[in-house]
Amino acid sequence: MRAAVMRNRTLVLADVPAPKPGAGEVLVRTLACGICGSDLHALKHADKFVETSRRAGNPFVMDLGRDVVMGHEFCAEIVDHGPETTRALKAGTRVCSRPTLLRPTGPQSIGYSNDNPGGYGEYMRLSEALLLEVPNGLATEDAALTEPMAVGVHAVAKARLEPDDAPLVIGCGPVGLAVIAALRLRGVRPIVAADFSRRRRELAVAVGADVVVDPTETTAWNSWREAAVYRDASRAPALPPWIPGPAVRPAVVFECVGVPGVLDQLMAASPRGTRIVVVGVCMEADTIHPMLGISKELNLQFVLGYTPDEFAATLRHIAEGALPTAPLITGHVGLEGVAQAFVDLGSPERHAKILVHPER
Amino acid sequence: MRAAVMRNRTLVLADVPAPKPGAGEVLVRTLACGICGSDLHALKHADKFVETSRRAGNPFVMDLGRDVVMGHEFCAEIVDHGPETTRALKAGTRVCSRPTLLRPTGPQSIGYSNDNPGGYGEYMRLSEALLLEVPNGLATEDAALTEPMAVGVHAVAKARLEPDDAPLVIGCGPVGLAVIAALRLRGVRPIVAADFSRRRRELAVAVGADVVVDPTETTAWNSWREAAVYRDASRAPALPPWIPGPAVRPAVVFECVGVPGVLDQLMAASPRGTRIVVVGVCMEADTIHPMLGISKELNLQFVLGYTPDEFAATLRHIAEGALPTAPLITGHVGLEGVAQAFVDLGSPERHAKILVHPER
Repeated sequence: MRAAVMRNRTLVLADVPAPKPGAGEVLVRTLACGICGSDLHALKHADKFVETSRRAGNPFVMDLGRDVVMGHEFCAEIVDHGPETTRALKAGTRVCSRPTLLRPTGPQSIGYSNDNPGGYGEYMRLSEALLLEVPNGLATEDAALTEPMAVGVHAVAKARLEPDDAPLVIGCGPVGLAVIAALRLRGVRPIVAADFSRRRRELAVAVGADVVVDPTETTAWNSWREAAVYRDASRAPALPPWIPGPAVRPAVVFECVGVPGVLDQLMAASPRGTRIVVVGVCMEADTIHPMLGISKELNLQFVLGYTPDEFAATLRHIAEGALPTAPLITGHVGLEGVAQAFVDLGSPERHAKILVHPER
Repeated sequence: MRAAVMRNRTLVLADVPAPKPGAGEVLVRTLACGICGSDLHALKHADKFVETSRRAGNPFVMDLGRDVVMGHEFCAEIVDHGPETTRALKAGTRVCSRPTLLRPTGPQSIGYSNDNPGGYGEYMRLSEALLLEVPNGLATEDAALTEPMAVGVHAVAKARLEPDDAPLVIGCGPVGLAVIAALRLRGVRPIVAADFSRRRRELAVAVGADVVVDPTETTAWNSWREAAVYRDASRAPALPPWIPGPAVRPAVVFECVGVPGVLDQLMAASPRGTRIVVVGVCMEADTIHPMLGISKELNLQFVLGYTPDEFAATLRHIAEGALPTAPLITGHVGLEGVAQAFVDLGSPERHAKILVHPER
């Protein structure tokens, strides 16, 4: 099959063997697959990616000496059923799935794998038990956003929000936009979001941000503080006379940048007791000053992925129009355009999410 | 008055002005004051201590060009009452207090301050509203441990322990010992604790650890895993077939070392979903790999100090014998011995807590 292959730490268009569905698995044709920031990281920092996977104790680690077909944000169509399948969903059915293969020896990654090609190739194999039928009437490209939107849904769930918590989203790339959409879905407002890119601030508004901040004009925390004032004074805690008012709600920050230095900056600028939800994936070593965390009793919650229930609920929410996906989709390419798309995604003024259509 | 003074980044015995109690304040004579690891840090890394205080937005920052009398773990005796005091507690009453002065312009630190001398001097001024009478029959030196033991009580409270959580304490200096005692007070068992020092492991057992680990013989996590197996199999979650059993309880780690590198090591070795409570005070920059936290969805809760209620409850628990303090007290010095005590505390085989008695 044709695929955009990570080979020798670069992306090439190549013919590779199509996967064969094993027991309980189906063969699917990729209809659309989003390019994830983590894939950009994995290509650019391949050795660090592998080293960190190993250090974290992941049982399956990519061998960079062999081909890898990435792509884990997909919508696909069933082509064939392997042995020991129920065939509850027929060939031709459009499906989404978590990018995981259920194997008797444990789950395996689809995409970050030498053996299980992802959506940057024409075909994938998926576990039948994980298939979710795409509802009639939902466009393929919107269904392909289930995976990245589920990341936002999960991050907001892990934030354990209390009724008075006031969110701040740092970074409005696809991860930040998914978090904003998930906050809006839960009715958590006002949502303050910051990004240096004008285009991304526009997208943030399109998916539900109430206040957007250009950090070159004011700090995210200044805007947050204005927005986080208690509107209902009866809910506000009494402030001691030496603390200038008005009282502001507790801060929950979503770090959606994933670049070294951002975490320490946030720790320095956060109000006392802030909870920082780390959603942006920083693959590199990072320096923090623990004393900043200690002196303000900060909490850092690192998050990854989603639960099976969150993934399924996200597809339903997208189908119902409760999670907006259209603003995120800023480009489409065929397999021959994947390498250039990886480059183009470096410019926040042009793109949020580019979808790969292997058959185009 | 006589005091052990931090002057020109060193400790000297000197005569300094005795403090004068302001409105709502009392003058007290220091009976005993523990030497805290943070004081060792503050002396050794004075510039970093000041820089971090400033960066964290603390309103009062020490001027290292002026004298500082440290010491914030004290038991004292009321000598005189300032203006606007109720005199509910008479002169001669033994008292403890949080090391804080309540002033109309906001709280001020006692000890880490140019203006409010701490317990390494003969006299202090304290806010009358914060005074807690030491119960009859409780020895002065045990009462002086209220402050460091309250740190353990608070850290355990901030850990938000669930019934199945299994604790691991890394480092058995005074902070780790206080955490162990507080875990035992709450009946959280078994308590696994690790320290390179044999003496400190003995102290850990004396204050309530069930299992102590010498990291040169096995890893803390190996011992923890053995101890954290569900005894009641009906509480254990079902494990998928590819995860080797037996099921272990959720991990809550108390980081009580506070040295660069420990946090990253813990993040690399922790099981998925571990909550790390950072109690050890690391004054320096520290390097972490956020990807370790992300891939295992770790939670870092930084903690500091205690609430007023926790402080008062700690004194009661000590008086009732529910929080053991005697094992921690390993030495006594007069003011002329403070500088040497700071040096001696560097050796974990000799000392945990040295008390300063300014009148000796």
